[in-house]
Amino acid sequence: MTPQEAPERRYAVFDEGRFLDSNAKFAHGLLRYGKDEVVAVVDSSLAGQRVLEVMPDARRDAPVVASVGEALEFGPTSMLVGLAPAGGKLPPEWMGALREAAETGVEIVSGLHQRLAPEFPGKKVWDVREPPEDVPLFSGAGLEVEPKVALTVGTSSAIGKMTATLEVRRTAGQAGVATEFIATGQTGIIIAGWGISVDAVVSDFVAGAAEQLVLRAAESSPEVILVEGQGSLGHPAYSGVTLSLLHGSCPDCLILCADASEEKVMGLVPRPEPARIIRLYEEVAALVKPAPVVAVSLNTKGLTDDEAREFAAAVADATGLPAVDPLRDSAAPILEAVLAAPKTRPTV
Amino acid sequence: MTPQEAPERRYAVFDEGRFLDSNAKFAHGLLRYGKDEVVAVVDSSLAGQRVLEVMPDARRDAPVVASVGEALEFGPTSMLVGLAPAGGKLPPEWMGALREAAETGVEIVSGLHQRLAPEFPGKKVWDVREPPEDVPLFSGAGLEVEPKVALTVGTSSAIGKMTATLEVRRTAGQAGVATEFIATGQTGIIIAGWGISVDAVVSDFVAGAAEQLVLRAAESSPEVILVEGQGSLGHPAYSGVTLSLLHGSCPDCLILCADASEEKVMGLVPRPEPARIIRLYEEVAALVKPAPVVAVSLNTKGLTDDEAREFAAAVADATGLPAVDPLRDSAAPILEAVLAAPKTRPTV
Repeated sequence: MTPQEAPERRYAVFDEGRFLDSNAKFAHGLLRYGKDEVVAVVDSSLAGQRVLEVMPDARRDAPVVASVGEALEFGPTSMLVGLAPAGGKLPPEWMGALREAAETGVEIVSGLHQRLAPEFPGKKVWDVREPPEDVPLFSGAGLEVEPKVALTVGTSSAIGKMTATLEVRRTAGQAGVATEFIATGQTGIIIAGWGISVDAVVSDFVAGAAEQLVLRAAESSPEVILVEGQGSLGHPAYSGVTLSLLHGSCPDCLILCADASEEKVMGLVPRPEPARIIRLYEEVAALVKPAPVVAVSLNTKGLTDDEAREFAAAVADATGLPAVDPLRDSAAPILEAVLAAPKTRPTV
Repeated sequence: MTPQEAPERRYAVFDEGRFLDSNAKFAHGLLRYGKDEVVAVVDSSLAGQRVLEVMPDARRDAPVVASVGEALEFGPTSMLVGLAPAGGKLPPEWMGALREAAETGVEIVSGLHQRLAPEFPGKKVWDVREPPEDVPLFSGAGLEVEPKVALTVGTSSAIGKMTATLEVRRTAGQAGVATEFIATGQTGIIIAGWGISVDAVVSDFVAGAAEQLVLRAAESSPEVILVEGQGSLGHPAYSGVTLSLLHGSCPDCLILCADASEEKVMGLVPRPEPARIIRLYEEVAALVKPAPVVAVSLNTKGLTDDEAREFAAAVADATGLPAVDPLRDSAAPILEAVLAAPKTRPTV
């Protein structure tokens, strides 16, 4: 599927009793960044209010209603199971409500590890994490795409790579720069309406999956293809996925995502210093194709303004790169750095 | 499964018309290194001869016979489909012969991408590439195993990592050093009788698979665990698998495998110089746990003795490490370097 082929959906979000949980970040992503309409949110604990009243940073309003029946009155095509996959399995008490929606012909959309298609035989179900069956091996065709490709990488996982990518995209849109966003995880896929959850792909084919996504995004000839990264080169569990994306998406430049946390990755190993991990990302990328890190996107959540400023200055100083929090400040300096970066050629 | 739990098999190898093909390297691996007995080879084009007559470097003898019926007279428990997975699909004309074996209760063993279990319903089939269903995420427990762990890495794929690992194991056995071999690809799994084909595992779980294999190999308290590596850090298609093994198997030291070829990886990118890729492997490993490269295992196939000597001297000079071809010379210097390497601690 290309971005142009992604169907248009009208979502109702089912998040009974949990819409304000951090576990609902899936739903939050759709509201903040999704290309598709959201017509209602189901959470009886907040019913009668509106999304922007209970979640001021949602950027999009919709009524919160008490039941699936009420949500269906808004004519959704699709019902999103508003739980992050970390939540794991579907709460059993949600099954009845989802079945009610599915029976009316509404599509059930889920990013859970647990696949829902077998639970609703004969009904429309989009298990977002289910990879396509025809992913080929990496071929090298991605090394020849015309648009510039920028990939987000990180000092750890869950550090804001998707948000950074989407904020750069938003800023580009405001500036009239044509981009395509490549979603590589379930929340990004809901937002974009297409993509591949690369961590669910058999390992031999992850680089091929990333390459296919880039080839499809290139079809509309955008100025920049923005690829959502995953994991981290130093994350003991997910580094393989990270590296498959680094080589498979054939980027011309990288955006490093970093935060001020001193928490160990998986509680096991220290987060690498930005300057050190930048050098490693660049050296490992250059085995296939050079891709310099051109900017650092900071996640300063929880810091005071002063702390955030200090942290940004320290990272900019240590790396010699623009370093900003796209949410607290603006993604413009990151976009500028991406636009200024040259297209690179494969290593010969 | 632990190495101790791997069942004992008596193999017949089915390789009709192809036993001397390079595509039969699967069968050759079993003959050269396998823990299990080989009672006969089926290839009517060579029938009446013996394995060591037609393949002098097989290290193990067995009769070559003309038919499955004749092979069954030697009482095999299992019949190996003697084709490398690059061969892809089972030659359709083989199906009848394999069915004949399966009908008698003999187990069919296959390393093909194509799974054979559905072709022989109700019969015993071991699809070697089929990963177990219960592979967990990487947990960090592998960072604490007691035996020393050595992993083979490479400047490219298909460069002799399995052979290097098995030659070190063989040399260790001769020297009375207790080792366990961890197989991560189909040929290695046939040889060892257990293991996981990591390139068939969903990407999120490859590091976890490697870790589980190390934990199981540690149960017999060997002096050294030797892990078969896959791919290369600079291989655009397989680098993710390589890195998942590098972090997931928690090695204390690495053995670099290199050859003198100037062929580009996938026809796309140059093979990195040994010294450069050694530094990168070490730096990327050290994000989680330091693992110095302690020796270079050379693949000098096709070189004259003089060329091989010159190549070995050049690599030893450039890297400052022992550099030998374990097949042409001896794996003893590699084993020595592994034994001399200290156990390392996770990065803090």
